[in-house]
Amino acid sequence: MSNKYVYFFGEGSAEGSASMKHLLGGKGANLAEMTNLGIPVPPGFTISTEVCRDYANGGYSTDVVKEIENNILKLESVTGKKFGDLSNPLLVSVRSGAAISMPGMMDTVLNLGLNSQSVNAVASISGNPRFAWDSYRRFIQMFGDVVMGVPHSQFEEKLESIKAFHKYESDTDLKVDDLKELVELYKIVYKNKTNEDFPEDPLKQLWATIGAVFGSWDNERAIKYRSINKIEGLLGTAVNVQSMVFGNYGDDSGTGVCFSRDPSTGENYFYGEYLMNAQGEDVVAGIRTPQKLSTLETGNPSIYNELLSVKNRLENHYRDMQDMEFTIEKGKLFLLQTRNGKRTGQAAVRVAVDLVSEGLLTKEEALMRVTPQQLDQLLHPMIDPKILNSLKPVAKGLNASPGAACGEIVFSPEDAEAKSAQGRSVLLVRRETSPEDIGGMNAAEGILTATGGMTSHAAVVARGMGKPCVAGCKAVEISGKAMKIGKDYFKEGDIITIDGSTGNVYSGKCNLVYPTLTGELKEFLSWSDDVRSNAERDGVKTGFDVRANADLPIDAKRALEFGAVGIGLCRTEHMFFDEEKLEHFRRMIVADSLTERVDALQTIKEMQIKDFIGIFEVMNNLPVTIRLLDPPLHEFVPGDELGSLAKMLHKDVDELKVRIESLKEQNPMLGHRGCRLGITYPEIYDMQVEAIISGAIECHNRGIKVFPEIMIPLVGTVNELKILRERAIEVIDKIFKEFSCEIQYKIGTMIEIPRAALTADEIAEYADFFSFGTNDLTQMTFGYSRDDVGSFVPEYLSKKILKEDPFQVLDEDGVGKLIKIAVDKGRFVKPQLKMSICGEHGGEAKSIEFVYKTGLNLVSCSPFRVPLARLAGAQSVIRNRI
Amino acid sequence: MSNKYVYFFGEGSAEGSASMKHLLGGKGANLAEMTNLGIPVPPGFTISTEVCRDYANGGYSTDVVKEIENNILKLESVTGKKFGDLSNPLLVSVRSGAAISMPGMMDTVLNLGLNSQSVNAVASISGNPRFAWDSYRRFIQMFGDVVMGVPHSQFEEKLESIKAFHKYESDTDLKVDDLKELVELYKIVYKNKTNEDFPEDPLKQLWATIGAVFGSWDNERAIKYRSINKIEGLLGTAVNVQSMVFGNYGDDSGTGVCFSRDPSTGENYFYGEYLMNAQGEDVVAGIRTPQKLSTLETGNPSIYNELLSVKNRLENHYRDMQDMEFTIEKGKLFLLQTRNGKRTGQAAVRVAVDLVSEGLLTKEEALMRVTPQQLDQLLHPMIDPKILNSLKPVAKGLNASPGAACGEIVFSPEDAEAKSAQGRSVLLVRRETSPEDIGGMNAAEGILTATGGMTSHAAVVARGMGKPCVAGCKAVEISGKAMKIGKDYFKEGDIITIDGSTGNVYSGKCNLVYPTLTGELKEFLSWSDDVRSNAERDGVKTGFDVRANADLPIDAKRALEFGAVGIGLCRTEHMFFDEEKLEHFRRMIVADSLTERVDALQTIKEMQIKDFIGIFEVMNNLPVTIRLLDPPLHEFVPGDELGSLAKMLHKDVDELKVRIESLKEQNPMLGHRGCRLGITYPEIYDMQVEAIISGAIECHNRGIKVFPEIMIPLVGTVNELKILRERAIEVIDKIFKEFSCEIQYKIGTMIEIPRAALTADEIAEYADFFSFGTNDLTQMTFGYSRDDVGSFVPEYLSKKILKEDPFQVLDEDGVGKLIKIAVDKGRFVKPQLKMSICGEHGGEAKSIEFVYKTGLNLVSCSPFRVPLARLAGAQSVIRNRI
Repeated sequence: MSNKYVYFFGEGSAEGSASMKHLLGGKGANLAEMTNLGIPVPPGFTISTEVCRDYANGGYSTDVVKEIENNILKLESVTGKKFGDLSNPLLVSVRSGAAISMPGMMDTVLNLGLNSQSVNAVASISGNPRFAWDSYRRFIQMFGDVVMGVPHSQFEEKLESIKAFHKYESDTDLKVDDLKELVELYKIVYKNKTNEDFPEDPLKQLWATIGAVFGSWDNERAIKYRSINKIEGLLGTAVNVQSMVFGNYGDDSGTGVCFSRDPSTGENYFYGEYLMNAQGEDVVAGIRTPQKLSTLETGNPSIYNELLSVKNRLENHYRDMQDMEFTIEKGKLFLLQTRNGKRTGQAAVRVAVDLVSEGLLTKEEALMRVTPQQLDQLLHPMIDPKILNSLKPVAKGLNASPGAACGEIVFSPEDAEAKSAQGRSVLLVRRETSPEDIGGMNAAEGILTATGGMTSHAAVVARGMGKPCVAGCKAVEISGKAMKIGKDYFKEGDIITIDGSTGNVYSGKCNLVYPTLTGELKEFLSWSDDVRSNAERDGVKTGFDVRANADLPIDAKRALEFGAVGIGLCRTEHMFFDEEKLEHFRRMIVADSLTERVDALQTIKEMQIKDFIGIFEVMNNLPVTIRLLDPPLHEFVPGDELGSLAKMLHKDVDELKVRIESLKEQNPMLGHRGCRLGITYPEIYDMQVEAIISGAIECHNRGIKVFPEIMIPLVGTVNELKILRERAIEVIDKIFKEFSCEIQYKIGTMIEIPRAALTADEIAEYADFFSFGTNDLTQMTFGYSRDDVGSFVPEYLSKKILKEDPFQVLDEDGVGKLIKIAVDKGRFVKPQLKMSICGEHGGEAKSIEFVYKTGLNLVSCSPFRVPLARLAGAQSVIRNRI
Repeated sequence: MSNKYVYFFGEGSAEGSASMKHLLGGKGANLAEMTNLGIPVPPGFTISTEVCRDYANGGYSTDVVKEIENNILKLESVTGKKFGDLSNPLLVSVRSGAAISMPGMMDTVLNLGLNSQSVNAVASISGNPRFAWDSYRRFIQMFGDVVMGVPHSQFEEKLESIKAFHKYESDTDLKVDDLKELVELYKIVYKNKTNEDFPEDPLKQLWATIGAVFGSWDNERAIKYRSINKIEGLLGTAVNVQSMVFGNYGDDSGTGVCFSRDPSTGENYFYGEYLMNAQGEDVVAGIRTPQKLSTLETGNPSIYNELLSVKNRLENHYRDMQDMEFTIEKGKLFLLQTRNGKRTGQAAVRVAVDLVSEGLLTKEEALMRVTPQQLDQLLHPMIDPKILNSLKPVAKGLNASPGAACGEIVFSPEDAEAKSAQGRSVLLVRRETSPEDIGGMNAAEGILTATGGMTSHAAVVARGMGKPCVAGCKAVEISGKAMKIGKDYFKEGDIITIDGSTGNVYSGKCNLVYPTLTGELKEFLSWSDDVRSNAERDGVKTGFDVRANADLPIDAKRALEFGAVGIGLCRTEHMFFDEEKLEHFRRMIVADSLTERVDALQTIKEMQIKDFIGIFEVMNNLPVTIRLLDPPLHEFVPGDELGSLAKMLHKDVDELKVRIESLKEQNPMLGHRGCRLGITYPEIYDMQVEAIISGAIECHNRGIKVFPEIMIPLVGTVNELKILRERAIEVIDKIFKEFSCEIQYKIGTMIEIPRAALTADEIAEYADFFSFGTNDLTQMTFGYSRDDVGSFVPEYLSKKILKEDPFQVLDEDGVGKLIKIAVDKGRFVKPQLKMSICGEHGGEAKSIEFVYKTGLNLVSCSPFRVPLARLAGAQSVIRNRI
């Protein structure tokens, strides 16, 4: 615990700095930093996050109280104003601000310091009584709501009833006397609910508000937000008490939000929105549609230029794209906040690449500026460009978060969560979103809102989540569980498509496709390749490669486009699902004799050779790891309707039924599959090995460089691998002799059974490589059937029994321990043994970092996740240098 | 490798001794020892097992050849005979003999040294030309068969044709001239097959035979025998070359086999069988039915008394029951073999207990003299004594190996193996068994033979396997795949019952029951309890207890009778399969509302309380570990026929179908079961905890001492246990308050998921004990579904991919490593944490020793295996003292 709890800023200097985010929160640290940079910031002080923790544990110490009191005095002295002063009263804002930004998650109170006396002073100083009384009634409402828990709606009712009585259409029609009456009515609402008079004493107001803001750290919304965004390890929020400046003094006042670069595309132009005669929350809340910053350039060039200069100084100082809030009070500019701007994946890459070419960042620094999740956004679906021209949007809104999505529409976050839990794709349609909607937004494929701008809640949160969002789509009229767009009606469950990159909304389902890599992304990722290929361990260059899981030439092509340096997992069984091959494969399965089986296999072999040639051609000069047959035979035969199969195979239906019935298993996951098939039906693996090597030799003879790697799945005991390896080598040697040609090849194994990990030293003797199949390894280590966990894992996650779904994020404590055991044992026997991971986790950033640290040489993931893996791998290398 | 390869014995002294079994084999070591003891043994020499290894690796060294040659000269000198000598030729037997006895598995050649010259010498010396020529033709046949692979049947054909020509009924009808002619015919058979003349040179005969006997170590039969009997780590067989003595010289000669005590019951009386005018193989092969030793006592008291004296010296010398072979040559006694006798479990215990009371063994030595497998025999089924008097046997044979068995009859070892593989119980019926039948004998529940005595192949092997056997049942007439017993006909597949303890054979299936412990077994096992309760680790008394798995009071009673000191696993779900409870349990499962479910649970609770009280009453003063509900709910609902369930529950059939369908899982083993149910349906575990504690309190109030231990199954993450433990404690505290009574209890967990083992340190924080559920742990560590392994594990065993079925013998390399990890991690957090094993392995001797060494405190197994576990546990303690 420090000895200092409160940090003052104002008059060109501050006690804090940008490096103190952990203590001052992001907002407080940046207010201090800006002050030190000489940028106009209303003075104030920040109460540190340590005090939040103490508050939660029982209250403030006397030291803290004393320090806050001293800072209040200092603030009064610096501003020349005094709390409750009848001629020049000090008004302050009280805002939360944690080390990691949690937009809209915690509470804010403005205009604090107003009471039945000072309101008159403000009226006379500002020459604008309406402003003064409006500020006062807003303060009562906010204080009542945030500090004392008086429902927002109870105040709104009073407001609406006065408006109705006077037949006013808008809040701005309210006159000073109406506002004075409203203040009295609000105070009655306040007293009815709290049994107390609304506090007159500004200090009492302040202490209560500070406590409420600290308390908001642990409100349900904030907890859920941190859970969804996996924010952990923070002490709490800091509280910023800052003297007020008013954007709603009149028409020479205003407030706005701006980004030093476009947060959607990353383009280097000064981007922002503002509203004149408004308070800051009006812009963010998306209730009024704001003006573009470019209009300020023409409307008020001097303010614009001052803002531009501030922007440049901040960006150069922070060496990153800034998200700033400003207020113009009676023609004077104040900065209320700056922070590194949230951005789309596209923008993140663009900004990082630009900052490198502008000389502000090194390439490695740039690599750390883009999160793997942001990159993942770039790989979100888009509407098939081929059909795009033929599509007619039913409406257009703001392109608030890029990517396209389609799904059933739902109108409440609860419905979104419920239907998504049933495995359905939903789009959440809302007038506007609010922090309570977080869960539903997370569950939805995309978000469509009727009001709100690019910095509205929906837009900011959707970008953070990497979800497509069309915001402020005014054509949308919502009524209960239905909506109208122009002349079209949609009810819950109807399907629409949104394109968050254009703002277009389409009726029905549109075909979605994945984008390819842009030029700057390619460059950016090539830097990551450099970092990974230079990865060292104990002074030896080990590299850390990214390959792709691809079963067909078309997948292999995509993998190559996305930068994979090989195929890490080619599942041969996927080839059998092709109609023609399936027929012969089934013939093989139900064969009555070895001759019949071998005959069917012969036919399949010829087809498999073509499959492998297709892949080798694409992957010229790159290694291709081919896994031999893995799933149980039962998966390949039809469940019912044996008639047509029987006819085709000239077999008796009943006999067929008996054969197929005999293949059924109680727990197929733990049954007769993988190398167990290779042992009991050696002719199947023989055929596959023959096909791989024959195909490879044919390619080799055509000048294609082939590096086939044969992978034996589901090994649990060394003898399985020993027998299958020896047999494969026999088969291969025969082919080499037959073709009078030898090529390089490897034979390795999956480590996907706990016992394989535990006996990896024995297994390593017979393996040229290990590939961790973390899907199966997770199933068996947890004893979870991936097909069946739906009945309890969601509850486990919500009850925090599991921190994360172990099928998404590799479980370091359990599965990770087995991997570590296997790495240690395997390398003990073969210090240079190549090891990789090819489960889903190979495309998940946290898991990638774990396996890098554990000593693996490469990851393999689905082609779409290759770019993410390339970046996450590079970041792992950078972060874990000693 | 030693410098000495051949060990001479003869003339009252020998170069070897009983302690050299590893080098000389059991037979050779004991021949040496007997010679040194001054017991009459025909002189000879033993070629060591090291030479067998060298022979397999390519041949003898010159040193070996020289040593053998020297020993031949020495043997000639000692006997005063010479190989091929025309007046006094040396004849020898050549016998195999490994360190571990493998009866009948390897080859033997007798009468070696005979040729067309020496046969005349033998004729004149013996004054019995018929004997000489009969010995010669036997030698040609044995040498041809054993050494040169001439089929036995080709010689037999010649024999039969001569007998047919002369219309002889028996071999003994053959005259000298017939035998001379037979010798010529045999030599032609020999030459036709081998393209060589039958060797005349005795040294050539000898070298070829020594090589064949060494080679027989690796014949198929011998390999299979070692595999079934898990004989490993031997160098090979030794070869014993010994001068012949003849039991078939005439009526003053004979041969026999005797045991120093009854090998079936262990009773201390001199037990044996012999045949006058016969060679040793005639007794063992069971072709002629031999006479009891008691007739020798009256028939030839001087030889009998000499044999009795030899028996007593040998038993006192070896301090164990002896199995001896003797030959009387012209009224002179020779011992050809002694070894510790194979015996039934019953005999093993009786002998061990008697030897302690005779002062020959200490109690701990006695404990090591009975194998856990032998003890297991005692727990084999017997025919229900209640019905025994009403049963009428269809035949009676010899009570060759105790225990009763019933099953479908089969007439070939192949059929026995095939049907047993289909899961059917079979009884193997044979005229007589031979070493080729081993596989079928192993597959059968029991063996019935028509000929052969108590020391016949069938009897010896069956006793070794612990399988019931009725031998020499003369009433049995076999014809193809059918048999006739008296007037009753039986065909393959008909069911019979045999009682190996009485020799009775019954038609049809008889009710079998398990025996209780006899007085001497009780005493014997009480010694094991002393050893286990005094077990120490690092100077601290840890004990090593045996509890039983028991679900119902009747099981608990049996467990107590068999000496369990508590219940280690009471599976509550077995209670639900009771008809009445099942109805309510199903009502609970398909309940539409929590109220309905809680209502059904309330009814079940009252019934469960009674169940627990029943068990607590039986286990007064002993701990009872109760596992909460484990299997998936789907197991409790009917697959089809929902009509009656729907009616009973007043539900709609279709709704019911939907509910039940929703419970189905792809891989139920890895699904929604165990503590996962406890988390998602907390009311079920609440009910069970309430029932346990309420029942315990009621017993406590009635003066019964209760020690309930609540066990949470299938924990994979610490949070599951934490939540369920805390909830259970809440429930318990409420009951304590309600009843104003507190009792001792524990809450622990199963370690049966690999992840639980890997995170045992975290889990230990919330566990009062660990119990390793090695069934599930084996399933998940191997990725084997116990229900589905039938399709590949048999092949894995035959291909030696797996040394043993891991569901029978704990896999030390994989599962064992996880157990070790869990023990280390658990004890790191709680050094005194009690740990047990409660899978099938808790009743398997090798697994028991492993878990003892790994540091577990107790094992729990099925009641019938408790005696075995008590002994195996004690042996583990004794063997692993430092």
